[in-house]
Amino acid sequence: MRILLVGAGGVGSAVAAIAARRPFVERLVVSDYDPARAEKAVAATGDPRFVAARVDASDEAAVRALLAEHRCEVLLNATDPRFVMPLFRAALAAGVDYLDMAMSLSRPHPEQPWSKTGVKLGDEQFALAGEWAAAGRLALVGIGVEPGLSDVFARYAADHLFSEIDELGVRDGSDLTVRGHDFAPSFSIWTTIEECLNPPVVWERERGWYTTEPFSEPEVFDFPEGIGPVECVNVEHEEVLLMPRWVDARRVTFKYGLGSHFIEILKVLHETGLDSTTPVRVGDVEVSPRDVVAAALPDPAGLGELMTGRTCAGLWVSGTGTDGRPRQVYLYHVVDNAWSMAEYGAQAVVWQTAVNPVVALELLATGQWRGSGVLGPEAFDAVPFLELLTAYGSPWGLRDGG
Amino acid sequence: MRILLVGAGGVGSAVAAIAARRPFVERLVVSDYDPARAEKAVAATGDPRFVAARVDASDEAAVRALLAEHRCEVLLNATDPRFVMPLFRAALAAGVDYLDMAMSLSRPHPEQPWSKTGVKLGDEQFALAGEWAAAGRLALVGIGVEPGLSDVFARYAADHLFSEIDELGVRDGSDLTVRGHDFAPSFSIWTTIEECLNPPVVWERERGWYTTEPFSEPEVFDFPEGIGPVECVNVEHEEVLLMPRWVDARRVTFKYGLGSHFIEILKVLHETGLDSTTPVRVGDVEVSPRDVVAAALPDPAGLGELMTGRTCAGLWVSGTGTDGRPRQVYLYHVVDNAWSMAEYGAQAVVWQTAVNPVVALELLATGQWRGSGVLGPEAFDAVPFLELLTAYGSPWGLRDGG
Repeated sequence: MRILLVGAGGVGSAVAAIAARRPFVERLVVSDYDPARAEKAVAATGDPRFVAARVDASDEAAVRALLAEHRCEVLLNATDPRFVMPLFRAALAAGVDYLDMAMSLSRPHPEQPWSKTGVKLGDEQFALAGEWAAAGRLALVGIGVEPGLSDVFARYAADHLFSEIDELGVRDGSDLTVRGHDFAPSFSIWTTIEECLNPPVVWERERGWYTTEPFSEPEVFDFPEGIGPVECVNVEHEEVLLMPRWVDARRVTFKYGLGSHFIEILKVLHETGLDSTTPVRVGDVEVSPRDVVAAALPDPAGLGELMTGRTCAGLWVSGTGTDGRPRQVYLYHVVDNAWSMAEYGAQAVVWQTAVNPVVALELLATGQWRGSGVLGPEAFDAVPFLELLTAYGSPWGLRDGG
Repeated sequence: MRILLVGAGGVGSAVAAIAARRPFVERLVVSDYDPARAEKAVAATGDPRFVAARVDASDEAAVRALLAEHRCEVLLNATDPRFVMPLFRAALAAGVDYLDMAMSLSRPHPEQPWSKTGVKLGDEQFALAGEWAAAGRLALVGIGVEPGLSDVFARYAADHLFSEIDELGVRDGSDLTVRGHDFAPSFSIWTTIEECLNPPVVWERERGWYTTEPFSEPEVFDFPEGIGPVECVNVEHEEVLLMPRWVDARRVTFKYGLGSHFIEILKVLHETGLDSTTPVRVGDVEVSPRDVVAAALPDPAGLGELMTGRTCAGLWVSGTGTDGRPRQVYLYHVVDNAWSMAEYGAQAVVWQTAVNPVVALELLATGQWRGSGVLGPEAFDAVPFLELLTAYGSPWGLRDGG
């Protein structure tokens, strides 16, 4: 398979490191706005199948030219969500398959942002579903860890564990700490602000999609493998938009284990307008305050050596088991930072995000997964995915009782 | 008197509005990096003695040329503290008097920032005191409200109320609120961050100057004229550096009534590195995060119409009264935003800062105050200052009992 990877940040570099161990890859072009980042990711693999390139992800013509130059069959988008639409359109125009780990951005309801959805996550992508289907090409959207693996778990639960599902509740938490930093997010702060300060979205069978106030419905969830209890709150996330399209459930939620300190910081960034993406004038230049927040904080991809702990992504499912009795399970995937650093030189959160699209690419390369149109991970059979993930050395878990 | 005012922000514009009512002004050149701001401040006065000019406050040669062009005898600095030294040097080189409302910046002690002073506020200015004295010119430093009026109060207390002073404690608080804003500081956030996140400085007769952790020694101070109790904490402020040089006391402190919400916001800005003045790279540009914080928040000078409440600056003094008995007083100055908006179109905090240098300029113009070298407000007789401030329509108060 000939792949164009766009974005050589933390996740993109980990994608390269993981893919370098897989023979299905014939060519992987690692591209970035900053050519030095792309070259560094390629050099780290020491693999002749990998080459670096410079590209502006917002320039559709340049992306198409790069796809053509390297005869790529698929574009894997590892940039931040602002670049979803230009890359998605470039892949459609170029007639190649497309994968991403975050979907096109939402816009709040203009009058009732805390109760009604406006433009939802992925709406702009699903609007082009007919064109993708007509072209016979696949856009596999939201195939990181969350969204991604959590959606695979939803399909697995529906097919193998439950006869009827009450709630699909994604629950994400960690016990990661970063030595020497009071505050150092382990994932892109740009994306975290976007997820956490937008109105959280919930789906219910009777109501459809609706929104709440930020940080709503706090609950303490007990994470497995020693992580323990973490306070989780509703945030906006793609799974809530994806799962109801392919999996039958009464309710779909996403709760993120932010912890009270992180929530306080996000609230202050919002109060001071520093979460905004609207440029402000500073002296002779214009910058987006949110970009400055990201630039002022340490790059999460570089924190791996200072991090300790584990990160857990998973799906809590409640309903009626295949035996007709009430059942609750938590399907999960834990990555220990010490393991991902030792094995791949990648910190736990970015490695956990990066492994899933590589597994998906391999399933597409071998023909175990096939499809066309704009599809979420839950549109495919979960079993080969979970088997291959385990074969990559990173098994998943099931905790009965929820 | 022919005056060059540098800085046409909130305080500078209010200086122009106040000075326009005083006949001692022969010429006032209002200058700013942004010529539109200077022109707006001049136009608001409708006074032919006032002219606007563009100047870069960091360009000493340009400032000297502007002083010469308009034959100014004095430079009033109403910029933020980063521009103190170039303006101070330009005035010295040009042979004119100089006034400011904030002093040259401090740098923390490299090893023990929370217990020892490094470079103190004003140190760079006092280092040139000999040159100012030799030139026979006056640099009257820290003559806003705080520092400024509070220093005048210290001198007044020493000369007229106390035979021995135990503590000179500046206490600053308000009950100002801004309609429609969760968080909208009523004064320059750049300066507020500088004051509040630097190590607070305290002076004691036996110890000299020393520093503490930020936000140390919280106390609830009951402010007069209906403002009521506000939580105050130690912050770094010029008075602590000025008062011990001219007024005899056992201890000098400065506590700012920030309130817990503001303290939380400042802590988050610090944790996230957004208080930093070291530029970060964002895309193709470099910006100082603290400048972006200031740009993202509403301009405090423009909030006057939305503000309600009063601001109080004052000095709490304890010791032995002139009658030999223990005494505590609070000497204070309160400005009601409704009054300053109606009278001058300026919000309370900037008006309260701006009135004091205009009073001082008038005392220098009439010869009631005279001196040379680098002097603080407490080096001069307090009585004519307090009488003239009252004549400006803004009386001060004395609360016996502290």
